[in-house]
Amino acid sequence: MVRVKNYVYVQDFTKEEMQDLVDLGLLIKAHVKAGYHLNVLNQLTLGMIFEQKSTRTRVSFETAMTQLGGHAQYLAPGQIQLGAHESLKDTARVLSRLTDILMARVIKHESIAELAEYASVPVINGMSDYNHPTQALGDITTIYEHLPKGKNFEDCKIVFAGDATQVCTSLAIVTTKLGAHFVQFGPKGFQMKEDVQEICRENCKKSGGTILVTDNEEEALKGADFIYTDVWYGLYESELPEEERMKIFYPKYQVNMDMIKKTGNDCKFLHCLPATRGEEVTDEIMDNEHISLVYDEAENRLTAMRALLVYFLDKKDETIKICKKNLGSKRSKLCQVKRSSN
Amino acid sequence: MVRVKNYVYVQDFTKEEMQDLVDLGLLIKAHVKAGYHLNVLNQLTLGMIFEQKSTRTRVSFETAMTQLGGHAQYLAPGQIQLGAHESLKDTARVLSRLTDILMARVIKHESIAELAEYASVPVINGMSDYNHPTQALGDITTIYEHLPKGKNFEDCKIVFAGDATQVCTSLAIVTTKLGAHFVQFGPKGFQMKEDVQEICRENCKKSGGTILVTDNEEEALKGADFIYTDVWYGLYESELPEEERMKIFYPKYQVNMDMIKKTGNDCKFLHCLPATRGEEVTDEIMDNEHISLVYDEAENRLTAMRALLVYFLDKKDETIKICKKNLGSKRSKLCQVKRSSN
Amino acid sequence: MVRVKNYVYVQDFTKEEMQDLVDLGLLIKAHVKAGYHLNVLNQLTLGMIFEQKSTRTRVSFETAMTQLGGHAQYLAPGQIQLGAHESLKDTARVLSRLTDILMARVIKHESIAELAEYASVPVINGMSDYNHPTQALGDITTIYEHLPKGKNFEDCKIVFAGDATQVCTSLAIVTTKLGAHFVQFGPKGFQMKEDVQEICRENCKKSGGTILVTDNEEEALKGADFIYTDVWYGLYESELPEEERMKIFYPKYQVNMDMIKKTGNDCKFLHCLPATRGEEVTDEIMDNEHISLVYDEAENRLTAMRALLVYFLDKKDETIKICKKNLGSKRSKLCQVKRSSN
Repeated sequence: MVRVKNYVYVQDFTKEEMQDLVDLGLLIKAHVKAGYHLNVLNQLTLGMIFEQKSTRTRVSFETAMTQLGGHAQYLAPGQIQLGAHESLKDTARVLSRLTDILMARVIKHESIAELAEYASVPVINGMSDYNHPTQALGDITTIYEHLPKGKNFEDCKIVFAGDATQVCTSLAIVTTKLGAHFVQFGPKGFQMKEDVQEICRENCKKSGGTILVTDNEEEALKGADFIYTDVWYGLYESELPEEERMKIFYPKYQVNMDMIKKTGNDCKFLHCLPATRGEEVTDEIMDNEHISLVYDEAENRLTAMRALLVYFLDKKDETIKICKKNLGSKRSKLCQVKRSSN
Repeated sequence: MVRVKNYVYVQDFTKEEMQDLVDLGLLIKAHVKAGYHLNVLNQLTLGMIFEQKSTRTRVSFETAMTQLGGHAQYLAPGQIQLGAHESLKDTARVLSRLTDILMARVIKHESIAELAEYASVPVINGMSDYNHPTQALGDITTIYEHLPKGKNFEDCKIVFAGDATQVCTSLAIVTTKLGAHFVQFGPKGFQMKEDVQEICRENCKKSGGTILVTDNEEEALKGADFIYTDVWYGLYESELPEEERMKIFYPKYQVNMDMIKKTGNDCKFLHCLPATRGEEVTDEIMDNEHISLVYDEAENRLTAMRALLVYFLDKKDETIKICKKNLGSKRSKLCQVKRSSN
Repeated sequence: MVRVKNYVYVQDFTKEEMQDLVDLGLLIKAHVKAGYHLNVLNQLTLGMIFEQKSTRTRVSFETAMTQLGGHAQYLAPGQIQLGAHESLKDTARVLSRLTDILMARVIKHESIAELAEYASVPVINGMSDYNHPTQALGDITTIYEHLPKGKNFEDCKIVFAGDATQVCTSLAIVTTKLGAHFVQFGPKGFQMKEDVQEICRENCKKSGGTILVTDNEEEALKGADFIYTDVWYGLYESELPEEERMKIFYPKYQVNMDMIKKTGNDCKFLHCLPATRGEEVTDEIMDNEHISLVYDEAENRLTAMRALLVYFLDKKDETIKICKKNLGSKRSKLCQVKRSSN
């Protein structure tokens, strides 16, 4: 089997590998919650390069690494600038000698791609302007944990409302890869680019999923199992001022009780956070324990990081063995990914 | 017994609980100094939010956490802004999913209060513009370690000289709670606010302590067992320029050999640090090994943090058991808080 | 035996002590590469003060500390300013109470000297404007690992090409102390200062080494075993603009294939990094696996840090015992420093 070396694109893993990672993450999560220690990453070091601020990604990577017995080094924005004081090639090679694995949140996707090319250790993308792979893994984990009664992942309709951010891109690619029915409900000019849609369509051919990009409310929302949104700022340098973004997205694309009702379904709400309450989502939705999964979703960043670190640091088999032994019969109650072949 | 969930106000613990924390801190301190390892916080994570710079608080929290087998994540000023990019409520809820305990140094006291309200994990105040609870615990620990011969804590006269900073507030509240005799010796306009004095008077009613706020030198200093001071900068946005603060406080409120002599006592010196040598205190006092307790006091920030982390992460009983077993008879030489009921 | 308390100057250790540190570093390196764990620094804390940005020094110290079971606290530029908010004396004394060992990268050499004077814990210099001791230890380690066939360290000609930076100073002092033949090949005005040359000459008297400072190409390069270079920026406030530095150093002092050929030897290339490719060194040299040792050299920062931390935290004997036991016969293949008395 060819081993995946990096996780730079949401597409880097096959459907089966993604499902394995979800299972691995949920197994470790249950193990931690049961109070067991897992020391498999003892004396291993994760180098974390951040070209931009981050709360969730940074904290979840650092907690994941140390909970598993390892250590994470935080290289903050301004402390290291990829390609500024030395060639990115040199940074990649040097850090590969001083750490065991690297992650980076980068401004330009080319930086993470180049880092992965020259690093001899595994490289994980902690978000680029193109996509957000660890978010995607955490998100499908949350969906698997909250599947509608009687439905498989492949039966779900997952709607992303609003601007086609890199989180939207990631969700579209991962859900179509896994065979679900993905919709971006967004205004013209803020819809997913053709090349991303093409990847999704290719995914659907193999997986049996579907993809739809539309500004038609009824078509988009009817029967949705999950509605996901992200901020309306836009990306980096092209951030939209508040007045402008409200004119474009408000009120049609705001996730509120009205929108949830239009699904005609027991629909759940997802958000990568941070949320701008009052813009893309209301307090009523965010604070609704029945509808909102956002804090579970945030916690599953940690679930995803643990699985990825264990996988890339080559401790998967050892980890599964330890967790299964410790959890014993408790394990049967664990959420487990249902394979099509099951 | 109702368990204290947070340590946001110096008042959050009862007298007995404060004494228990002092004992716990001193027990762990002796255990560390004897070279024993204590791994009780293994794989637990402390999230440290700093809205302002800090040396002592940050380093002592981080050392305490890792010495006990855990891990501390440093979220530096600018890396996380409470209430800026998302509601403080969301930050509190998300970080509660990704860490086991939180501490924050905040600009406004309301921020730490709101963080504690919404966090599901314990929250410790690493200083706000209102008070500085971990400093207070470290300070009473230092006083207990250096009680004048034949005196109990309740017999001591503790004088804070200078500006009524949040450190002064904290010392006033904690010492009156414990039944000692507290004096703020400061000029009008820089004396403790009425609401804080009222808390202290209420404390005294129960504890038998006394509180006095005065600019009368003789009344303030006579018989003092401890003199404490803090910088004359003032607080945050209202910082005083050097010339101005010198005009207000110098030379009357400077702690120098002259002031110590006026106590007519074997008086000890305390300072939360950093000190502006030559302003609120002279080199002669700072560097006097017989009078100055400031470095012991700085070390007891660590003593306090260890006790608080063990307490809030629910490892108190386990810790006491391990320490007592390892220390054995050496434990009898330990400084122990003398209860009134003793 | 008088124990060295700090490593502030490259000169702080004797020749024999430097060789012992190289051996210790290589032993631990072999132990790590063989997959063994070494937990000797368990629950010990390194305080890392950085007045300037750093990648290699920071990451290698932090990885070294945590790989050995300890913890490193990163105090970033701006978070702590030596001598700014309190006297350096107080910072030294306070941090000595809260950590077990300190390292600092400072702007002015006097800061690290004062820190070492007042700290009661060991202090390691992570680079000052005068010298770069940990780089020197890593560099001689790399040279020992790559000695030309049949040659001892004392037989080698080591040429530093370019500007007399603090890295040049460090290399000159350490190689002359160890008895090798050192040359600085640099233009007038950018040659090593007289006082540094004097130290080197004194070293040579005892060690049998030689020192030469010259801008004569043939004399400098002929027979060189190692060519080392550093950036042409100059130091800190007196940094040279690109055009100016190119006029001074280019093309004569650039390390390229032409220069290597002029040695008439199987000459290896060293660089402390970061490198400005196209200025002081060409891509052709940097990327040449036969000539360039720069990534091995970067990795040996870690090798040096591990040895220094183990030495200063008083775990040398314990470490040697554990490593020898675990490595067993594999140890015989280890590079070992050949003493003159051998």
